[in-house]
Order: sequence, then C-alpha cells, then structure tokens
Amino acid sequence: PGNDFLGWLDLPEQMLSQVDAIAARANEIRANSDVLICIGIGGSYLGSKAAIEFLSPAFEAQRKPLVVFCGHQVSSDALGDLLDFIADKDVSVNVISKSGTTTEPGIAFRVIREFMEKKYGRSGAAARITATTDPASGALRKLATAEGYATFPIPEDVGGRFSVLTAVGLLPIAVAGVDIRELVQGAIDAKKFTSGSDLSTNIAARYAVARNILFRQGKVMEVLASFQPQIHFVGEWWKQLAGESEGKDRTGIFPATLDYTTDLHSLGQWMQEGSRTVFETFILFNKTRRSITIPSFADDGDGMNYLAGKDFEFVNDKAFKGTLLAHLDGGVPCSVIRVEDRSAAALGQLFYFFEKTIAISGYLLRVNPFDQPGVEAYKKNMFALLGKAGTEKQGEVLKKRLMDLGI
Amino acid sequence: PGNDFLGWLDLPEQMLSQVDAIAARANEIRANSDVLICIGIGGSYLGSKAAIEFLSPAFEAQRKPLVVFCGHQVSSDALGDLLDFIADKDVSVNVISKSGTTTEPGIAFRVIREFMEKKYGRSGAAARITATTDPASGALRKLATAEGYATFPIPEDVGGRFSVLTAVGLLPIAVAGVDIRELVQGAIDAKKFTSGSDLSTNIAARYAVARNILFRQGKVMEVLASFQPQIHFVGEWWKQLAGESEGKDRTGIFPATLDYTTDLHSLGQWMQEGSRTVFETFILFNKTRRSITIPSFADDGDGMNYLAGKDFEFVNDKAFKGTLLAHLDGGVPCSVIRVEDRSAAALGQLFYFFEKTIAISGYLLRVNPFDQPGVEAYKKNMFALLGKAGTEKQGEVLKKRLMDLGI
Repeated sequence: PGNDFLGWLDLPEQMLSQVDAIAARANEIRANSDVLICIGIGGSYLGSKAAIEFLSPAFEAQRKPLVVFCGHQVSSDALGDLLDFIADKDVSVNVISKSGTTTEPGIAFRVIREFMEKKYGRSGAAARITATTDPASGALRKLATAEGYATFPIPEDVGGRFSVLTAVGLLPIAVAGVDIRELVQGAIDAKKFTSGSDLSTNIAARYAVARNILFRQGKVMEVLASFQPQIHFVGEWWKQLAGESEGKDRTGIFPATLDYTTDLHSLGQWMQEGSRTVFETFILFNKTRRSITIPSFADDGDGMNYLAGKDFEFVNDKAFKGTLLAHLDGGVPCSVIRVEDRSAAALGQLFYFFEKTIAISGYLLRVNPFDQPGVEAYKKNMFALLGKAGTEKQGEVLKKRLMDLGI
Repeated sequence: PGNDFLGWLDLPEQMLSQVDAIAARANEIRANSDVLICIGIGGSYLGSKAAIEFLSPAFEAQRKPLVVFCGHQVSSDALGDLLDFIADKDVSVNVISKSGTTTEPGIAFRVIREFMEKKYGRSGAAARITATTDPASGALRKLATAEGYATFPIPEDVGGRFSVLTAVGLLPIAVAGVDIRELVQGAIDAKKFTSGSDLSTNIAARYAVARNILFRQGKVMEVLASFQPQIHFVGEWWKQLAGESEGKDRTGIFPATLDYTTDLHSLGQWMQEGSRTVFETFILFNKTRRSITIPSFADDGDGMNYLAGKDFEFVNDKAFKGTLLAHLDGGVPCSVIRVEDRSAAALGQLFYFFEKTIAISGYLLRVNPFDQPGVEAYKKNMFALLGKAGTEKQGEVLKKRLMDLGI
C-alpha cells in the first residue's frame, strides 16, 4: 500500500536538473526583497522552516532576506503582526499548495495577495509571487497561469511530508542563502548507508527495526533529543514525518522532541524517573561552527575556574554523555544519531535518512506510511461549521452536538 | 511531602509590595538598553519567556527593548550569534540563579560578564547587571554584593517552576513593557475559582481529578493544544510545571504541546487515528487583539469567497470546534480551557490556575509535586566527566562505560 507515493526515493537525483532554475529564481528574490513570505502548511512549511533554522544564524536581523512563514495557522494576531512588519519592506511571496484550496494557506494568501497588489500594482505583485503547485491542474495552477506568476511543480508521486527536497522546500531554502545543490547531493550520498537489507550497513533499516521492537515492548513514545537549538525545527519536521506516517489504525509511536540541556530542567525529571513508556534518540553534531571559550575570573565565586579555557562544546559533550548514561540507568532505551556538521550536505543526508527510516518503520507496523486519512476529519467538520455549500445538513448536526456539549 | 515549598500559594498577594521596586528597575533598563539578556535555566527561564511571548508582538524588531535568553543551553553557535547580535547594541543583563553555581547559566554569565566589562568597564557593567538570587547566601549573592549589582530575592519556599510571579519572572516581563501589577492581580483573582473542595467551583481541582482518572485509564500523555502561536511558550512552561512535578517514582503523565492548526497537518493524523494513549486539553482565547477580514476576489479560483468578509478568528473558532468533535469521535478525551484575552491579567490567572492544578494532580498521584530528585542524575555524571574536583573516581567509571558503549 502506498507504492504510488515512492517518488521521494529517487527524488534527489532527479532534482539535480532543477536546482539551477530554482536557484536562479531565488537569486532574483534575494536581489529585490527584504522579506520572503512563504505561505503553506504541513509539508509545505516544515521542511523549509527546518532547513532554514538549521543553517541560519539565530536572530531575525542576521538573516537577509528574512524568510517568514504564514498560512500554517489562522491566528489574526500573528497575521496582523506580520502585516505591520512588512508594511515598509520589499516583499516577495512563495505560495505553496498542491491544490490551492487548503483553507489556512488559502485565506492567508488572499490577505497577502491584496497587500502585494496594493503595494506593487497587479502586475508588479505578479512579478514578485512564485507559486509552487501541481504541474498541470488545480486552483493555484490556474491562478498562476492567469496572473503570470512564476511557478515550480510539486511531483505527483511525492507526499507533502516527503517534499522538502522538491521546489516546495528548495526555493525558500535557496532564498535564505543556502547552496541547494549541496543539500540535494547530501541526500544522494545518504543512499550509501540507507540501502540494502543488511542491518549492519543500512542504518535507516536498523533504526526502524529498533523503533518497532521498542514500541512492541510498550514504549509508546519516542523522544528526539538534541543539544543544539538549531535542530529544533528538524524535530518538528520529523514529528510530522513520523506521526503522520505511522499514527493510524489505532497504532503508532508518538513522536516528541526535547531541546537539551534546556529541557533537562523541564522534562528531564520525567525522562529520568517518570513512566517508563518512552525511548530516546539523541541527535548530535560532530562539529559546530563556532568555538566559545569559558573565561577565567580571579574571584572564582561560582567555582567554575576548573572549566576556564575549555570550549562550550566540551561541556555540551559531557552533558550529552552524562545524560545518556543517566537515562540508560533510569530505564530509557537510547540511540544516538551523529550529524557531521551544520552544513547543507549533512542536512540533506539527515532528511533522507529519516525519510527512509520512517517509511520502513511504517511498513513494519503494517500501516500505509504514505497516506493520512485522519487529517480530513477536522476539515470536514470545519467546512460544515463554516457553512460551505453542500455541507448544510452536516453543519446542523454538528451545531446540535456542540450545543449539547455546552461549547 | 513538599509542604515546605508552598510559598507560591500566597505569593501573588505578597508580591504586591514588591512590584513597584521591580518596575522601577525595569524602567531604568528600558531607558538605557536595546537588549536585556536574561541568563537562567528551567524555572529561571520558562516563566518570563512564556509571558513575553504571550504578550508581545511576533517579530524581534517589534520589541523594544528585546529580551533575549541564554544560559539555558550550552550551544557555542547560539552564544556566538548572540555575541554578534549585541556587539553594537546597548545591553543590560539579568542573571537568575538561586545558587549561582548551576553550570549552564554559570558559564554563560562568565562570557556575558566579560563582554559587559570590556564594553562598559567594570563599574559600568555592574550598573547594568541585575542579579535575582538567594536573599542571603550563595555564590551569586556574594558576587552581587562584591560588585554592587542590583539584586532581587528568590523566596526560599518557592520552587523554580513555581517562580514566575517572583522577581525571577517579573523583572524580565516588566522590561518587555508589561504591567506586572496587573499580572500579579490576575493571579490573586484566580483564587476565586481555584479554591475549596467543591469540584463544581474549584476548576483547578476538577481538572486535576480528570487528569488523574484519565491517566489511570491508560492515557499516559496529555496534549495541550492551542490555536494561537502566542500560547506556545506557555505550553513549554507548563511542560516543566507538569512533567517535573509529576514525573517520578516511575509514574506521571507525559506532557506534550501542539500548535493548531499547524500541527493538525503534522501530528493531527496521529491524534485522530493513532495509539489511543492520549487525552487532550484545548486552550483558547475568548478575544484576540486584532481582527483581520478575509478579502473577496472576483475570480474566486480557490472557492473561498464564501468566507469573504469573515474574520480569521471566525474560521479559527470553527477549526477548533471541528477538531474537538473529530478528536472526540476518534476516542480522545478532551477538555477546554478558555482564557479571556491576551492581557497580563488573564495570563496571571492562567499561571496560577495551572500551578494549583498540577500541585493537586501530583498529590493525587501520591508523589511529592515539589521536588525534582531526578534532575541531579545527569549533573552528577556531567561533573564527573568534566573532571570537577572530588569526582575523579566516578569519572573513570563513567569513561569506561562510555568506551564499552562505543561512545
């Protein structure tokens, strides 16, 4: 089941012929924009967000252009802050949707399109909008053709959560200044250690088998724990990849993330001594970009002169090793994933590794890892409550239920 | 057990006499600083971070001064970005630690102190540093006295995760421009609906009882789900509050958060159809600050003109209601918490409500909700691996174990 959605398997090789066109469009946007607004939800948001956070400096003022995201929720306060923020800036837009009819990005794009057409005129706005959408059909494809937006295709055989290495992810990532050829090449290189049936060389299969065994032993949650804040949104991307692929038929590991050492002072207590229903996967860098040395102070009031002259990452490494041993002693099964560095190539490897792992993991659970039937449930109810044409009867039923619940 | 840590119960009333002094110091910082660096971890970080994200506009450039956090992790890349960011800015510092000897904030403060003394000279730096620490003893208290830092006390009978309404939280929150008297008054007002033994009027007790019943039925995880990104870090604060209070003695609900509708396109599939080991608590605003209307377009290619003229929050409300019914149908027990608005008063109520809930909840689990013995485990290992004096033997044992693990 799901074998019509295996396009991601050989996607990296296929994308090599498209990266120059994507990078060229990104360079146009970089040249004339302070801000790129990406409008998309789920797989049309998390992959590029993850890559940009992984590869960029921490502060908004350090990113030029700044890539911001909207249309992945419906908060009026958040959208209002964005409209204030871009009022006096030069803006480009990347609207990302296979169909063009998903509610959240759809209504956000209406607001942003109105803003752009007021600011730049209709044709000026059109020159600054790029649509990433179905190659042939759908509402957004039609609109892009009518208005003359630049477009990039979403392959038909690649699901949203596997789409980071299509134009969906690559255009915003390139706008953030990343060498996307290097990112794609990393994914290609990952095939070396994620292929074949030998668990001693295929580390994706090995990880998938370990996850499945642990889940069968009652470990219903997996915590992906990093010691670097730059990895946080890779974790969010992984949560969709894992949760949406495996969480069906009343089964599936619950994926959660923790940012250490921050969360050792939050959920660390639970991890150490709480319900033994969890296993943990550490994700580490072999190398960081910076080195910061701990200074010495003559007073040594804090008693930390024994660390003076050491690098922060020396401490971070001991924090990891101390945590690993502590959690093993606490009864938490642990795995370790090592990422070479904060490079596009290493991230490309990581993306592909996780995709392969989760696909195998889903099949080991005997679910279809490539569908997401449950995502429709809230949408159907929402449409009926919004009064969409043809849903009136269902709307009445739901309103009655809400009244009975006192909501 | 733990009844020597009940100071948070009547803390809000007691803080009324301190808010003016805290606000006065905050105003000095606001007058001469582009950036306030808060150095703290766990409860010395999450409360103020939660409040500032809840009450502030979304973008860094929209916050003056910008309150940033460090010393809650050990990443050299993150600290390096911060040093770049503040190089040409006017900076004040709030170092927050009961003892002054916690590793993460300790080493971060060494770097920031060096930066401040280079930039402003030793006495100039001292005038810009505020220490929030033990009222009488400890390394940070001693240093503050020696250097002449302004100080605020951390009450002895209030644990870290219950300290947001002490100076620990209130000073950074005030620097962000919040009326902290209103915040504290909100917490006082929350006593009205969180006291007494009648579950029909004490909603904290009612929520605690519900959580306990669900946990006994095998719902080992609670998801706190919001429809507003401003609530995200209240969820992070709550995760420490709940997880550290309850996760011990091999029991305790695992607290997780989801940001809807974003995560309906991520973990929504798992929530709808995955392992039935979860219950869900929705957290909503009755009122937002902004109203954004969905525009009409003549082409109506996306078919969303039926929503034209409606507010985003009209859609968001239907998304919530649709999700609630869908998850109930999917076998997820659900609760709803309504917060009046994005005001300091409403947030003060929310903080107090959660504190009371989790305290009761911990006692229902028959654990001490006010200790955190498990947090020491990684620290002990880390000290031994760092080579701290007196831990050499343990260090050798741990190094051997790591070698055997191939780490």
